[in-house]
Amino acid sequence: MLQNFITALDWFGLCVFSVTGALVASRKQMDIVGFALLGSVTGIGGGTIRDVLLGIQPIFWIKQPAYLLTCVIVACATFLFAHILQYRYRYLLWLDAIGLALFAVTGAGNALAHGAGSTISVAMGVATATFGGIIRDILGGESPIILRQEIYITAALIGATVFVGLMEVGASQDIAVALGFISALALRFAGLHWGLTLPRYQPKAGVQQD
Amino acid sequence: MLQNFITALDWFGLCVFSVTGALVASRKQMDIVGFALLGSVTGIGGGTIRDVLLGIQPIFWIKQPAYLLTCVIVACATFLFAHILQYRYRYLLWLDAIGLALFAVTGAGNALAHGAGSTISVAMGVATATFGGIIRDILGGESPIILRQEIYITAALIGATVFVGLMEVGASQDIAVALGFISALALRFAGLHWGLTLPRYQPKAGVQQD
Amino acid sequence: MLQNFITALDWFGLCVFSVTGALVASRKQMDIVGFALLGSVTGIGGGTIRDVLLGIQPIFWIKQPAYLLTCVIVACATFLFAHILQYRYRYLLWLDAIGLALFAVTGAGNALAHGAGSTISVAMGVATATFGGIIRDILGGESPIILRQEIYITAALIGATVFVGLMEVGASQDIAVALGFISALALRFAGLHWGLTLPRYQPKAGVQQD
Repeated sequence: MLQNFITALDWFGLCVFSVTGALVASRKQMDIVGFALLGSVTGIGGGTIRDVLLGIQPIFWIKQPAYLLTCVIVACATFLFAHILQYRYRYLLWLDAIGLALFAVTGAGNALAHGAGSTISVAMGVATATFGGIIRDILGGESPIILRQEIYITAALIGATVFVGLMEVGASQDIAVALGFISALALRFAGLHWGLTLPRYQPKAGVQQD
Repeated sequence: MLQNFITALDWFGLCVFSVTGALVASRKQMDIVGFALLGSVTGIGGGTIRDVLLGIQPIFWIKQPAYLLTCVIVACATFLFAHILQYRYRYLLWLDAIGLALFAVTGAGNALAHGAGSTISVAMGVATATFGGIIRDILGGESPIILRQEIYITAALIGATVFVGLMEVGASQDIAVALGFISALALRFAGLHWGLTLPRYQPKAGVQQD
Repeated sequence: MLQNFITALDWFGLCVFSVTGALVASRKQMDIVGFALLGSVTGIGGGTIRDVLLGIQPIFWIKQPAYLLTCVIVACATFLFAHILQYRYRYLLWLDAIGLALFAVTGAGNALAHGAGSTISVAMGVATATFGGIIRDILGGESPIILRQEIYITAALIGATVFVGLMEVGASQDIAVALGFISALALRFAGLHWGLTLPRYQPKAGVQQD
């Protein structure tokens, strides 16, 4: 039941991330096959790492190839229509935020549904939400999102923590999913809109950095 | 039977890719241990990812360490004889193409032999053929092959698709392997020889890219 | 029994590597969550790859989340106290060497304890000791340690080989662990102190490198 609900939300996050992967491909002026590869890796990468770490076999997209096919179709569509999206690249960061918030919750939910404890479930939520984008950036030759001075991983961490915490105290899963998703999304949006960041590490003056 | 045939071809692709990994090490002027690491990662990397994703345990080179030892030996030999190879670096791109075509077919064949469906088998062919080189480029600090304006992933995709398609329609495996291999190799060679590429994504004039 | 002994040593190596990961985060001026992520990936990354490759489920830190929590705590502590460490960055390379030597032996020991043969156990020792740092450098946007002109992988290889070799000839595990650890540490220290390196590959004059 939780699994079904989580699965439904997973689909949207997958499509959103596929678009962001395809957009990176567009910025590298790849061909349509490059779009398909980068879109797929971004869309299913985080969940794949989650399943491999948890030892879930078969991996979700091998069990249901429709996940992979969806990524490919979305990425190819982006190849044709990326012009429109590019004009709205900033809006896409907001779209990516939705995928981040969704995967933080669904990743943690999948872990819980497979019997993982609280700590591991939160970690899996963060991994599912962030590793797809990290792989996308590394393969696409972009500076990894985790190096940008933005609230990103933090949003996934908060969202997964809120969701798992509420599930642990026996809240209904609808409430847990909703609040987890909203808290992650709100935090990421705040980061994007107001440039909100956590205090960064500040080296002391005159400290040699290398 | 398919497995045996596939396994035989795997060995040659493994050696070819080990050489390309060692060559990257030579360009970074690594020591012989660096050659062994980069050669091994390139030679067995793609198949390792395939086995991990498919949940095949033990992984092929853990089941038969001879695969790993072969990579190490080939890489160490390259350390000693890379001078000769360097003069022929362009020829090596053609050698790499042979490995790409072989792994596209053998990767898909391994997936089929383990009961994967058509979509997943094609995906595994592409992953086996390309991920070894991708890991090599990332570890070696080279621009990933997938970012270069060449037909590369596409060749693996076509080769794996032809092979799987022919197997699905009941062609003899010899025919399927031969035609899959030839189609991938021909496409990659055409890309190398005539600089043939698929149409790349072209941003509209005046579109901001970042 | 071997497992218990190995496990104990694993903890120290884990903490040391977490600090090195957090230090990279400090050089990128990440926030505390970035410290936690990079510290954790560095601390548990090598062992995770080892467990995934060997098909060990559940993975050590999923079985015992205390491993993950320790990495997070150590990384967060580094966020607060990195100033002190930075002044001693060179000493930290020596600390990293201790982690390298520990993981080379414990990684190989874990593989042996799970029934792997000599070749694979040595390979797992090298993977456990080096991949955490490699992932750290890639995610942190640093030049991978394997590209630096230092004895690093070699030290792990020697340490794992000495340990596995002694175990194979029936030496007591205490002796094997001690000599494996010391040989790896001594070699890495020699590399750091005297700039000792293996002969690097030297391209012939006038050979085109690309």
